[in-house]
Amino acid sequence: MNFTNKITALLGVDYPIIQAGMVWCSGWRLASAVSNAGGLGVVGSGSMHPDTLKQHIFRCRSATDKPFAINVPLMNPDIQAHMRMIMDLGVKIVITSAGNPGDWTSVLKKNNVKVIHVVSNVKYAEKSEAAGVDAVVAEGVEAGGHNGREETTTLCLVPLVKKAVSVPVIAAGGIASGRAMRAVMVLGADGVQIGSRFAASLESSAHSAFKKKIIAAADGDTMLALKKVIPVRLLKNEFYDNIHAMEENGASAEELTQVLGTGRTKRGIFEGDILAGELEIGQVSALIDRIEPAKDILLNIWNEYLDSYNI
Amino acid sequence: MNFTNKITALLGVDYPIIQAGMVWCSGWRLASAVSNAGGLGVVGSGSMHPDTLKQHIFRCRSATDKPFAINVPLMNPDIQAHMRMIMDLGVKIVITSAGNPGDWTSVLKKNNVKVIHVVSNVKYAEKSEAAGVDAVVAEGVEAGGHNGREETTTLCLVPLVKKAVSVPVIAAGGIASGRAMRAVMVLGADGVQIGSRFAASLESSAHSAFKKKIIAAADGDTMLALKKVIPVRLLKNEFYDNIHAMEENGASAEELTQVLGTGRTKRGIFEGDILAGELEIGQVSALIDRIEPAKDILLNIWNEYLDSYNI
Repeated sequence: MNFTNKITALLGVDYPIIQAGMVWCSGWRLASAVSNAGGLGVVGSGSMHPDTLKQHIFRCRSATDKPFAINVPLMNPDIQAHMRMIMDLGVKIVITSAGNPGDWTSVLKKNNVKVIHVVSNVKYAEKSEAAGVDAVVAEGVEAGGHNGREETTTLCLVPLVKKAVSVPVIAAGGIASGRAMRAVMVLGADGVQIGSRFAASLESSAHSAFKKKIIAAADGDTMLALKKVIPVRLLKNEFYDNIHAMEENGASAEELTQVLGTGRTKRGIFEGDILAGELEIGQVSALIDRIEPAKDILLNIWNEYLDSYNI
Repeated sequence: MNFTNKITALLGVDYPIIQAGMVWCSGWRLASAVSNAGGLGVVGSGSMHPDTLKQHIFRCRSATDKPFAINVPLMNPDIQAHMRMIMDLGVKIVITSAGNPGDWTSVLKKNNVKVIHVVSNVKYAEKSEAAGVDAVVAEGVEAGGHNGREETTTLCLVPLVKKAVSVPVIAAGGIASGRAMRAVMVLGADGVQIGSRFAASLESSAHSAFKKKIIAAADGDTMLALKKVIPVRLLKNEFYDNIHAMEENGASAEELTQVLGTGRTKRGIFEGDILAGELEIGQVSALIDRIEPAKDILLNIWNEYLDSYNI
């Protein structure tokens, strides 16, 4: 491969395609498969205890000698232990999300870790740049999982963030094809982060019942919920319907949090309880129609991206 | 101009760019300016009584000999009078929205009117095709004004609709630049419909206070509101804040409708009451930074579109 741009140079990968860190989906198996195929594989630490994360880092290293990253939600209660481990073990790239980029960026950078922060608005893009990140992910409201309060779509957010910062911009949300990748690159992105399609990959650690629900999803099957707690995009199911009915009736953040309980995403995504679990996935699931090896997904997207040049 | 594609051929225009019909913004002045510049100008009948519409059709014809269209929201109480007038006066192109495409398409087609229907989901795209429309507008949730319940973004909706129907697809929502036009054309669109940027044009009949508020808008300044009534994207102001507070507390559709009253959009958009009026505009307003002649907008977008080939 001769392709090179700011993102491939920054990350040392063949293609400017990053697999999103996703709770209960992206362990060492998925991350190493993506990295081996030439993209950036990402271990999602959000659903891991520090010891589990340690095992995933070791296993990912045994499975690939290519670069990979760890995604760290900054509000994680285990954040101190996670960051300590990441630096002690010499992890080279960290993608932070859901929090203040000022908290950890300079510490990580001093330890020779490259830092990318996920943002959903211009203000946090500027904050990230000021904190010294190497790149930002601009994630639109169509993305699965946690989401910004502004509800800005990828089509609007990418040019806004590109205009606001000079660090490279990675687009996320609504991207599951090479054409969508071309579209966001035209808007100014230097690379893409792809979640949902990799959640449905063979190597994803999600339960097969969840993967089947992803590929069966149609338009309108995901909605943004829990805006009074933390906005999150979910596949509609019994759990969503309950939450939605409460929200329609004006339930408070406290009441919603109580019903949520704990372990809901594990129950849905990892254990396959597709009725009562919390199923985080992107709107683009409506365009995903098969479960495939991560390598095939990556190369299919890349080749379609190349083919869409000149459309 | 030598450019030609399905949309330019269907509409007889130079560029596959349609100016959206918008209440209190798009009378004969804006429509004729866009048509004279080579796009498709559209008179928005949603805010017009039948006699007013008649005057706008006559004036538009005096101001341009190029094709123009009338946008007709199908739920308009004056729908019978509007459609009768459109056919009697020999209007050539109608864009219908907010209703069932089966209601009027065949009647219009029998009267040699070309029909385009605006959809926000796959189901209505298929229904439109079955009803015999000449094209569909696939409008994402970032668009201003009335919106679909699925909240599907343009980036996800355009490929979904393209896959579902064989009639030409016009993308709408989040498009205010040539790069965004290129992005949606890559996704499969055959043309674009642009609202917000024309709402802020010199020829828009909107009040200058509203136009100034559009160009001052930043990301997060519009939100989808009134989902229990008809979802509509609004600029945040006192009116929005009141509605939003009611919604947070579980207000019913009836309670919301009562507070809405009548004439709210006229008050905001046409009379310039930017605090208490209902300000319908798209999320892409965050990317619009000047009030310009419609012709300049059209040519700027078209030239940027041409320049973005090969990105």
